[in-house]
Amino acid sequence: MKGRWAAGIDVGGTKIEAAAVDADGMAHEAIRTATDVAAGPKGITAAIVGAVRLLTDRAGSPPAGIGIGIAGQIDAATGSVRFAPNLGWHDVPLASHIKTALGVAVVVTNDVRAAAFGEWRHGAGRGLDDLVCVYVGTGIGGGIVSGGRLLAGCANTAGEIGHIVVEVDGPACTCGGRGCMEAIAGGWAIGRAAREAIEGTVEGSGAILDAAGGAIEAVSAEAVAKAAAAGDALAMRILEKAGDALAAGCVSLVNAFNPCRLVLGGGVIDGMPRLIDRVREEVSRYALPVAAASVEVVAADLGRAAGVVGAGSLALETVGGKP
Amino acid sequence: MKGRWAAGIDVGGTKIEAAAVDADGMAHEAIRTATDVAAGPKGITAAIVGAVRLLTDRAGSPPAGIGIGIAGQIDAATGSVRFAPNLGWHDVPLASHIKTALGVAVVVTNDVRAAAFGEWRHGAGRGLDDLVCVYVGTGIGGGIVSGGRLLAGCANTAGEIGHIVVEVDGPACTCGGRGCMEAIAGGWAIGRAAREAIEGTVEGSGAILDAAGGAIEAVSAEAVAKAAAAGDALAMRILEKAGDALAAGCVSLVNAFNPCRLVLGGGVIDGMPRLIDRVREEVSRYALPVAAASVEVVAADLGRAAGVVGAGSLALETVGGKP
Repeated sequence: MKGRWAAGIDVGGTKIEAAAVDADGMAHEAIRTATDVAAGPKGITAAIVGAVRLLTDRAGSPPAGIGIGIAGQIDAATGSVRFAPNLGWHDVPLASHIKTALGVAVVVTNDVRAAAFGEWRHGAGRGLDDLVCVYVGTGIGGGIVSGGRLLAGCANTAGEIGHIVVEVDGPACTCGGRGCMEAIAGGWAIGRAAREAIEGTVEGSGAILDAAGGAIEAVSAEAVAKAAAAGDALAMRILEKAGDALAAGCVSLVNAFNPCRLVLGGGVIDGMPRLIDRVREEVSRYALPVAAASVEVVAADLGRAAGVVGAGSLALETVGGKP
Repeated sequence: MKGRWAAGIDVGGTKIEAAAVDADGMAHEAIRTATDVAAGPKGITAAIVGAVRLLTDRAGSPPAGIGIGIAGQIDAATGSVRFAPNLGWHDVPLASHIKTALGVAVVVTNDVRAAAFGEWRHGAGRGLDDLVCVYVGTGIGGGIVSGGRLLAGCANTAGEIGHIVVEVDGPACTCGGRGCMEAIAGGWAIGRAAREAIEGTVEGSGAILDAAGGAIEAVSAEAVAKAAAAGDALAMRILEKAGDALAAGCVSLVNAFNPCRLVLGGGVIDGMPRLIDRVREEVSRYALPVAAASVEVVAADLGRAAGVVGAGSLALETVGGKP
């Protein structure tokens, strides 16, 4: 590989992805391994170190930096992971461990923010100074660029847009709140709504159950999407409600942040791309006129690579030294 | 007056306030005149020019700059007022007119954002890099500081937090949307809710009507507050709903922006300061733990002077040349 590159690492609850990311945001030599949660911080640190060594061998030159996106709250100053619920980590000095092992500068950030950084630098938000990225998967997360900077907030948790409230006294959220956008439009909430309807033996719930193979525990957003695609009325009603909540949340984000572009990505969006049209229409109709006129609602561009590309690009720009 | 100063001007729909603002954010020689809306841009420009001349005479030195906060959408690059609904203005090159008349550099901004700038520099948000100001008056507006910068957005309308949606399919808002925080918790919405209850002859609506002097057209948020203070159950119920909406909106803001401080001000807050405790409690209970732990919910510090102090301070910092 020619030129400067950084290792971009995306540590999720089920897999670790890594690639050599160049200055154009291209990901090379992608590696994917299962996350061995039981191995704890030591095991996962070793897996990351191994991945970077492999990338270095293949690239034929050492990385300028290492960027790691991880699902959790990060201490921006030290690169320590304060809390990563999927991994069961509390206060793990990840940046320091990796740097000690490899002697290369490391930056650690939240995984969703890494993905937003990737879309900003090399994807659907390229060249813009004001951008909101909304990722709808099992949960809903986001990253916000305003005035040419990715917002961090007072304790580095800005962008937790899954927990903006769209329904006072709405359904309970895993966060302890009620009526969060995620508690209606997140993948887990779509599955919950379907399971509740089935348990309540709401008429017409059979198609969703069939789509899940007959097991109520297996009813997920995917099963609801499948049943809705086959014309099932209950499934369509559940997705309609999820769409309402997502659209209301996006209207709020457009009014509060006034982005030039609103980027939608994540598993639920990929599975139901018509949600993008829905959000576009409602933003156009219900956001304040100037804010609505200045925003484009678009699909994310980098797909699953966003996290790795974003983490690597962030490393090149921040800890990677001069080009 | 000793030292550098700027003219801070707050142009509202009913009055124009002006003062000489020094580098410490102190407002001197305050002037207040009625806004002669019928006189149009020419008349109001003349009133502003007159106020600055008077301040200059009294200060004994020319201002380093002129800052104007005005209720409307401003073109940040030119200082033109794109749209000011209260004044009926469309595309008025206010900065250019004032500069031509006085030969002093001018900065024009939205009135609520000017107030937020004032609280940031010299009030309840002093010294912080991450701040959300929420003003609850007839409407609800705000100003957001993140990473040490006041957010502007793609078309200079960031901070329109009155129009974040807290109730999908909630009450209609003047903006054309539904369920906006302002449409439930804004002063006009509190008055509307009371008038609707009275027209529907909801039991117990007499106390609010009495508080408004018996005329349903005169029923306002003030009348509701007065009746609630006297123990009227309907009035208390209406304010409870308004408090729910305000608290839900503030939880959303804390989760999305992760501010170090959330500052509450405006006529409705001044009239019902217990709303601050209400918001503090709900943010502490329902915002995400790290975001909740890092935010203080406090009252605005500068009161009605925030707009003038903010506009003047903004002028000193941006167009006022070197200290």
